[in-house]
Amino acid sequence: MYLYSLSPSPPLPLATSVPPGGYDEYSAGSSSRAAGMNGSGPTKLVDPLEDPLPGVGTYEDFNTIDWVREKSKDRDRHREITNKSRESTVALLHSVSDAFSGWLLMLLVGLMAGSALAGGIDIAAHWMTDLKEGVCLIGFWFNHEHCCWTSNETTFQERDRCPQWKSWAELIAGTAQGPFAYIVNYLMYIFWALLFSFLAVTLVRAFAPYACGSGIPEIKTILSGFIIRGYLGKWTLIIKTITLVLAVSSGLSLGKEGPLVHVACCCANILCHLFTKYRKNEAKRREVLSAAAAVGVSVAFGAPIGGVLFSLEEVSYYFPLKTLWRSFFAALVAAFTLRSINPFGNSRLVLFYVEFHAPWHLVELAPFILLGIFGGLWGTLFIKANIAWCRMRKTTRLGHYPVIEVLLVTAVTALLAFPNSYTRMSGAELMSELFNDCSLLDSSQLCGYKQPVNTSETGVDNSLADRPAGPGLCTALWQLALALIFKILITVITFGMKVPSGLFIPSMAVGAIAGRLLGVGMEQLAYYNHDWLLFRGWCSPGADCITPGLYAMVGAAACLGGVTRMTVSLVVIMFELTGGLEYIVPLMAATMTSKWVADAFGREGIYEAHIRLNGYPFLEPKEEFEHSSLAVDVMRPRRGDPALAVLTQDSMTVGEVETLVESTHYSGFPVVISQESQRLVGFVLRRDLLISIDNARKRQDGIVSASLVVFTEHCPAQPPEAPPPLRLRGILDLSPFTVTDHTPMDITVDIFRKLGLRQCLVTHNGLLGIITKKDILKHMAQISNRDPDSILFN
Amino acid sequence: MYLYSLSPSPPLPLATSVPPGGYDEYSAGSSSRAAGMNGSGPTKLVDPLEDPLPGVGTYEDFNTIDWVREKSKDRDRHREITNKSRESTVALLHSVSDAFSGWLLMLLVGLMAGSALAGGIDIAAHWMTDLKEGVCLIGFWFNHEHCCWTSNETTFQERDRCPQWKSWAELIAGTAQGPFAYIVNYLMYIFWALLFSFLAVTLVRAFAPYACGSGIPEIKTILSGFIIRGYLGKWTLIIKTITLVLAVSSGLSLGKEGPLVHVACCCANILCHLFTKYRKNEAKRREVLSAAAAVGVSVAFGAPIGGVLFSLEEVSYYFPLKTLWRSFFAALVAAFTLRSINPFGNSRLVLFYVEFHAPWHLVELAPFILLGIFGGLWGTLFIKANIAWCRMRKTTRLGHYPVIEVLLVTAVTALLAFPNSYTRMSGAELMSELFNDCSLLDSSQLCGYKQPVNTSETGVDNSLADRPAGPGLCTALWQLALALIFKILITVITFGMKVPSGLFIPSMAVGAIAGRLLGVGMEQLAYYNHDWLLFRGWCSPGADCITPGLYAMVGAAACLGGVTRMTVSLVVIMFELTGGLEYIVPLMAATMTSKWVADAFGREGIYEAHIRLNGYPFLEPKEEFEHSSLAVDVMRPRRGDPALAVLTQDSMTVGEVETLVESTHYSGFPVVISQESQRLVGFVLRRDLLISIDNARKRQDGIVSASLVVFTEHCPAQPPEAPPPLRLRGILDLSPFTVTDHTPMDITVDIFRKLGLRQCLVTHNGLLGIITKKDILKHMAQISNRDPDSILFN
Repeated sequence: MYLYSLSPSPPLPLATSVPPGGYDEYSAGSSSRAAGMNGSGPTKLVDPLEDPLPGVGTYEDFNTIDWVREKSKDRDRHREITNKSRESTVALLHSVSDAFSGWLLMLLVGLMAGSALAGGIDIAAHWMTDLKEGVCLIGFWFNHEHCCWTSNETTFQERDRCPQWKSWAELIAGTAQGPFAYIVNYLMYIFWALLFSFLAVTLVRAFAPYACGSGIPEIKTILSGFIIRGYLGKWTLIIKTITLVLAVSSGLSLGKEGPLVHVACCCANILCHLFTKYRKNEAKRREVLSAAAAVGVSVAFGAPIGGVLFSLEEVSYYFPLKTLWRSFFAALVAAFTLRSINPFGNSRLVLFYVEFHAPWHLVELAPFILLGIFGGLWGTLFIKANIAWCRMRKTTRLGHYPVIEVLLVTAVTALLAFPNSYTRMSGAELMSELFNDCSLLDSSQLCGYKQPVNTSETGVDNSLADRPAGPGLCTALWQLALALIFKILITVITFGMKVPSGLFIPSMAVGAIAGRLLGVGMEQLAYYNHDWLLFRGWCSPGADCITPGLYAMVGAAACLGGVTRMTVSLVVIMFELTGGLEYIVPLMAATMTSKWVADAFGREGIYEAHIRLNGYPFLEPKEEFEHSSLAVDVMRPRRGDPALAVLTQDSMTVGEVETLVESTHYSGFPVVISQESQRLVGFVLRRDLLISIDNARKRQDGIVSASLVVFTEHCPAQPPEAPPPLRLRGILDLSPFTVTDHTPMDITVDIFRKLGLRQCLVTHNGLLGIITKKDILKHMAQISNRDPDSILFN
Repeated sequence: MYLYSLSPSPPLPLATSVPPGGYDEYSAGSSSRAAGMNGSGPTKLVDPLEDPLPGVGTYEDFNTIDWVREKSKDRDRHREITNKSRESTVALLHSVSDAFSGWLLMLLVGLMAGSALAGGIDIAAHWMTDLKEGVCLIGFWFNHEHCCWTSNETTFQERDRCPQWKSWAELIAGTAQGPFAYIVNYLMYIFWALLFSFLAVTLVRAFAPYACGSGIPEIKTILSGFIIRGYLGKWTLIIKTITLVLAVSSGLSLGKEGPLVHVACCCANILCHLFTKYRKNEAKRREVLSAAAAVGVSVAFGAPIGGVLFSLEEVSYYFPLKTLWRSFFAALVAAFTLRSINPFGNSRLVLFYVEFHAPWHLVELAPFILLGIFGGLWGTLFIKANIAWCRMRKTTRLGHYPVIEVLLVTAVTALLAFPNSYTRMSGAELMSELFNDCSLLDSSQLCGYKQPVNTSETGVDNSLADRPAGPGLCTALWQLALALIFKILITVITFGMKVPSGLFIPSMAVGAIAGRLLGVGMEQLAYYNHDWLLFRGWCSPGADCITPGLYAMVGAAACLGGVTRMTVSLVVIMFELTGGLEYIVPLMAATMTSKWVADAFGREGIYEAHIRLNGYPFLEPKEEFEHSSLAVDVMRPRRGDPALAVLTQDSMTVGEVETLVESTHYSGFPVVISQESQRLVGFVLRRDLLISIDNARKRQDGIVSASLVVFTEHCPAQPPEAPPPLRLRGILDLSPFTVTDHTPMDITVDIFRKLGLRQCLVTHNGLLGIITKKDILKHMAQISNRDPDSILFN
């Protein structure tokens, strides 16, 4: 004999197939998950396309969504549209347009992110960076390069020197030479840097506090189901775009790649409002945001496939295959839009596209792995130092003066950066210089080799062959070494300030400098020791055997990998930058080493560390839960705690329910048959409950505090003078997730992650307790000896 | 008050933190999921590294694994190793080697699949294909190209004509010209084709019946958790490798790409036996198999990234990020191994690597989309026709004569293919020819354009500019048209025969022919109508505006997309073949169109269609469950069926249990408190139960049919003369998955897919029924009006 708890209800139908017309009861139950009808009779089919009660089924700020409910809502909606489409042509067209709205949205996201934003940001930042050094006389809106193009008086060699472009010293002091001119330029450089950064930080503070930082930790959390209202809003978009340009131009040690992801997500979120399907469904919207993250990286690095893999690997939580395909589409659209805008004037997507010509040798894997170790150590140190600094900012008085902090850091950066040409140039330019393979015509200091004198003797006329370092290169190496130390120190305190700041470019710059230094070192070692066993056979005199640019690239990948712990996406992004399958192996070796070394000191990347620092409720999908605890160890109430706050299905009054809800802060309540039996009927959300009661009190006649709240299908018999009952079966989730008390926590955590739950009831033939995401995170914090109270939200 | 069902047990500890030493009871419960101890006391911690009872926790052939249990088992194992590693240095080393064994395995898989197999298969197939036409006098083991290289008497132009290479007519009849020589060659061609295919089909039938077909449908099913013993075994590997070479060489319309995936998976499966971690855990082994699928595609197309995405998109079921990274590693190793073997002598990974030089114009999107429509229609038609043919083979007498069928098809293929040079050459060579961009020196028939006479008049000396078709090209077009019809018809009956047969190359060939035809058509249209509005501005006389090779490539992608419904992976594979971001947009447009057109006629690709044809239990992760049924509509028992077969926790004897197990065919039984209350305690698997009882009867004293089977911690009081009870709590799963009867089926299906369940219990405050994967598949079949009895396995 089976047990039925809904005492007056008829036996459940155990029919093999769907009885004609006899489905309504269950359909109502299922679609009421979505729409949340108040007082709807059990046989009335609720139309999921209409919200009968505004607010029911939505979420509060700083709360986690229920993925299962959202996806179920979307399926109900889809089913409804499909069913209707058989009825009329208009409905059929509606169904088709609904199916294609996702693609249209992706197209729009790609176009908007690629053109208006990435292109605009690139052009504006380029112009403003040059403004720190001088101004164009033909028109102040031209940047240095453009100014000299327009002038037509320049040769190819001196394309960046032309009479129309005046440095500030020339304009103000009338001279371009001498110490006085240098000081004028220096001061003007600091002035502009301070002005830009002041504007940036004040704009952020005044209009959009969410616009600061890289935004990736928050986007990761949002994609996992958290709600931060306004984080992806129009103000954030506008202010972040403007201040990103200002911050990048101010010369601070930060990049635009991370913030571009945030900006692209803002675009996507705003465009979502054009389509009901995405506006009303938090889960569907997150699919679009995942694609937008791919778009952001795609325009930042000109790497559409790398962008999609970045989104898949690093930021996304729920990434169905359909989203993979759409992300790819959006990323491609964005990349092509950006290329047609051509912000760098070279029909390349990025400033540091590289082409190497010489192959690498197996022996070189040793220095590459060395770079990997350096990258891993740098990643670990950076994360630890940056988190310590950010924690200090959070807890001490330092955090109260963000403007002063930004101005101070800018002043220090500008003061130290100006004298060294490698720190004065922007991060992207620096990398472009470091990745560069020296050709004969190259006038760069890094290519200051001595010309070989004995080419005729050796019979080799390969002018690209390895050559001894000249004085130019030696100076460059010193400057690079200083730049390395400067970048390492300044990046730690820059990341996390109240301006938009990305981490990709500074991290990569550190690695690129280290790599170039090692590369030149290897090159010179090989030049002077051709007869060593190590070099014999592949690096004979006159051979072009070691490419320092490749070392720079490998170093950049290693350092970025150490900080972010990206793997596949990093290698693919780098592969798309070089375009050659050849160099994947060095990149892979360095990235793997870097990740292993960094993981040995702590498994979390910079983004996870910031998520933890901020106490967001984020269940890392990559980490395994290793402890052997059981659900019963984690659930609330604990032993000694007061009993779980539950509602009964048909014996509490509106007043009692209100008192219970008011006296607790839980976001949902299990509904049981009676306080005595504790047999589970369903689960009801606090917000839905409050809205429904509030609405009923206002609109429904006779609902008073003494009215009975009824979650069953049929009302219990009441005395005739009693007020009418308030029927709330519509907002009751009849299929809450349950696990038994003996379920190991590793399985429970897996269920939470994979299904995207926010709570789960623990049963043992009756309700025993509840586990929320916060409980799990607190339990995990406790296991790894961290403060469980650092988890702030649910 | 909470309800406890285990009547004599002490109250459950609701402790906040882990009580020291007080954990054992639960740990035993959790790790006994893994090890399955028989008769272990409740306080004894079971070592998950040792199997106390062989067979417990394993699966029968043609059954689905329990992903949750397997993953939990692996976590227990890992926890054990980690805990031990703190004790001694040896254990620490063991832990480190355990962590790196995954990488080592990947390296081995990459090396083995890349070298021994893919390289060997390429070289052997190349040689044997040439053997059909003639033999090398220097050494019969040289293929045509190699033979003429070695001879050194050949010029670059005539690299494939040299005196050392003799056609069969020259050898047998002494003449290379005339109708007699032609007939001799024709007959020899048919003879070799028949010999090769006869050998292939007899070897498959005699030694490894699983070696036939492409293997991808079965691998998809295996990766989703199904067990087919021997499918990935050593015999399958050996026989499939040999017969694949034979089948490809026989000239049948089939490719080696799909079977290469199968072969790579066999390698991986065999190598798994070297590592305990993978040998003993079905879930971990499937991670390796997913990576192996990526390796297969990586070596087939020289596309490591495309291979990984193929595995992710098309074949894998459970693909954690860790596997993504490892697959990428393995795919790269394989690609580089293959390249160092250099089977094609051009340091390229594939025969049809292409480089285009001319850009494409937006107007050309129209013909590309047209190709997409063609691809979609071809895909639909192919799937329908092939499935109908395969069903006929299954149900009629045709299936009883596989050898005759293969010989007949081979004879027809050889007979029709020989006279047409485009069908005579292998699929890969055909594609290489069709993708080719005509240069001036090209002697191929497809480049038989008339030389422009008026270059001096127009002042343009671009010899690559569009030219009118000459007689050579016209002949080629006729031959291609005939080849298209032939390929379309023969591929339908070839795929599914009892020889290894891939589908990629034949599908792509169909598309490539169609694309090339359309491309040449467009080119000639533009040549004769330069003044049309359509061509004005971008395709003026003398411009190199239309590349027929690109059309062939787009057509190939469209047709492959129509048949397999691949998206991202297809575009990335094609991108890796061309190496240019430019051509992604045409490829994407065609692939998207093709998928949409094909999906309009039926959502399943060829692999899913074959899975369904074979009745495998596969829950398609891409398809949404759209119906609004509830768990109660799907569960067993149905209304009117006999009650669910359940065990009670402490009131059934060994004899009763055996009778119950014997009289049913269920693969597991819920355990309840008593027949009267139906309160759920746990779930026990049939196999574990049988093995444990069998073992106890043999080894344990006093276990007779009258012994009580006890699933509780403490035995109930028994009369003193009663036989000792059989304690089976160790094999009881104390945390079976449950859903309520009101749970919508879309959510239930989602749970099944995401967690990889094989069964789920339906409760309503007590056990109500059970839903298995088979029940869900039957329900889905019923909804879409298919025969529910076509689902054969569970």
